[in-house]
Amino acid sequence: MGHIYIGIDLGGTNIKFGVFDKDLNIISKSSIDANVDTGAEIMINRIGDYIEKIVVDNKYSMKDVKAIGMGSTGQFNLTEGIMYSCPNMPLFKNVPMKKMLSNRTSKPCVIENDANTACYGEYACGAGQGSDNMVFFTLGTGVGGGIIYNGHLVHGTDDSGGELGHIIIHPGGRLCGCGQRGCIEAYASASSTARRATEAVIACEPSSLKKLLDENGRITCKDVFVHAEKGDKLASKIADETARDLAIGCITMRHVTEPHKFVFAGGMIAAGQPLLNAIKKHFADMIWSMKKEDVEICFAQLGENAGIVGAAALARDIK
Amino acid sequence: MGHIYIGIDLGGTNIKFGVFDKDLNIISKSSIDANVDTGAEIMINRIGDYIEKIVVDNKYSMKDVKAIGMGSTGQFNLTEGIMYSCPNMPLFKNVPMKKMLSNRTSKPCVIENDANTACYGEYACGAGQGSDNMVFFTLGTGVGGGIIYNGHLVHGTDDSGGELGHIIIHPGGRLCGCGQRGCIEAYASASSTARRATEAVIACEPSSLKKLLDENGRITCKDVFVHAEKGDKLASKIADETARDLAIGCITMRHVTEPHKFVFAGGMIAAGQPLLNAIKKHFADMIWSMKKEDVEICFAQLGENAGIVGAAALARDIK
Repeated sequence: MGHIYIGIDLGGTNIKFGVFDKDLNIISKSSIDANVDTGAEIMINRIGDYIEKIVVDNKYSMKDVKAIGMGSTGQFNLTEGIMYSCPNMPLFKNVPMKKMLSNRTSKPCVIENDANTACYGEYACGAGQGSDNMVFFTLGTGVGGGIIYNGHLVHGTDDSGGELGHIIIHPGGRLCGCGQRGCIEAYASASSTARRATEAVIACEPSSLKKLLDENGRITCKDVFVHAEKGDKLASKIADETARDLAIGCITMRHVTEPHKFVFAGGMIAAGQPLLNAIKKHFADMIWSMKKEDVEICFAQLGENAGIVGAAALARDIK
Repeated sequence: MGHIYIGIDLGGTNIKFGVFDKDLNIISKSSIDANVDTGAEIMINRIGDYIEKIVVDNKYSMKDVKAIGMGSTGQFNLTEGIMYSCPNMPLFKNVPMKKMLSNRTSKPCVIENDANTACYGEYACGAGQGSDNMVFFTLGTGVGGGIIYNGHLVHGTDDSGGELGHIIIHPGGRLCGCGQRGCIEAYASASSTARRATEAVIACEPSSLKKLLDENGRITCKDVFVHAEKGDKLASKIADETARDLAIGCITMRHVTEPHKFVFAGGMIAAGQPLLNAIKKHFADMIWSMKKEDVEICFAQLGENAGIVGAAALARDIK
């Protein structure tokens, strides 16, 4: 009977692997190039080869592996483990990833989308530990989401629930990549925050960010938060609007699944305590007065390990 | 072993009762005055007496009663069946309703809030039958909500999840009774729809509704939909905005629990097909283009029976 788990985080550029003990402690981690242009069959074989290698490298045998979990970008039928499509991996259409990986490794496998996997990682081993009812936002190029309710991920009817970045908060507002207008993602992702700042600077609003745009040709989300900290008025306004829009997302979710914890992850949380404090302040200012809300808003703890940890946790929980 | 169920719908004015067979067919229904000013003990005793009466009236004995369900206004600890408070019943503070009713009747009892009870009724026997994943909005003075996920009501951490009327759709917008700004309830309840129309008429926007306001001193939500049907431009605009705001609520919930059915209930659905069509149109216009959405938007089927049916269904499902 196996007693270790393999957690895999499949991205468009590289594939991260973790070997975990039964308590989900990381024994080792490493990564290989994704080489997505070789197609699914070759990739799954390489993944199988690599699992065998890291298992042996850590002085185990494949008999010790109980199950394998994989978090991945793309759209899925999660029950069947089929990747319908993935913007970063154009050759992958209706690929039965779970079955292929299970056949290759002779192990029980589970596939989950990347935001849900990271959410589950934080729930199992990170900021959400002990929170059977939590909501997770990951703030990067987009805004990803995950919902834990009664200790399980919320998948929805067709495995695309928990897409919290596409909650509409400003009807008729900014166009989102998804085709809707006014999504949280169109305002409060790292990219959208940078874009809103860039537009304001181009529209000649005075700001210390102008020099950056002139010199580098671009303004990043990090620039916005750094200049906000330094007291630039425009950067402060943009950063505060991002925090407010994230708080609105929290309030909506408060009235839906009523979590007792909100966990924020992704590159943007490098902005640190000022961002977290601003989200909390807007939440407190805008939430109803019907009852005192005893909810925690915090940052994720696992950083870039969330994907492999979550994948291993999902592997552990295979029934 | 009992084989009939009692469903109770407790409102501030009267208390409705239904006697149900094991398949949740209504055997009889009736109601008594709530007389909330007599306090909880007397009310629960009257409810107990009345249950005994209707059971005998229908030629059963109390031995035939398997369980009793009650839906009620107010705020609850649902697990314990304690009513914390209720705006309509000021004497009821921290009342252990479930325990009192169970002690009085010697039957297993369950208590649920009214919107969730109606939602569960529609799920068990009405428009939501067969939809293990549905979202319910009830449109009256306020906007109530209910969520069925994996066949169960979503209660949230502290039994106040599913408050869908308080999703924020217009940040900084109209003040809601709950203390927030921009809630769905502040725009798209029957009362808010009437209020928006009244404000527009007072602000001299031309409308056939003006005559009504002058004559009756008020405009109702029904008036808005009737005049919209007759072609009045302002009434059409107000009715359409209500439908749009409800569609925004549906889109948000699409991205959260991804239901395959949205069910609308409450007095406003008397507006009929034009309202339903407008909600569907706005949903289709505004929803993302990432995938085709195969979701049904429909009206509730149980009318004013939803409360007693839902309460009986909850009684049937007591574990």
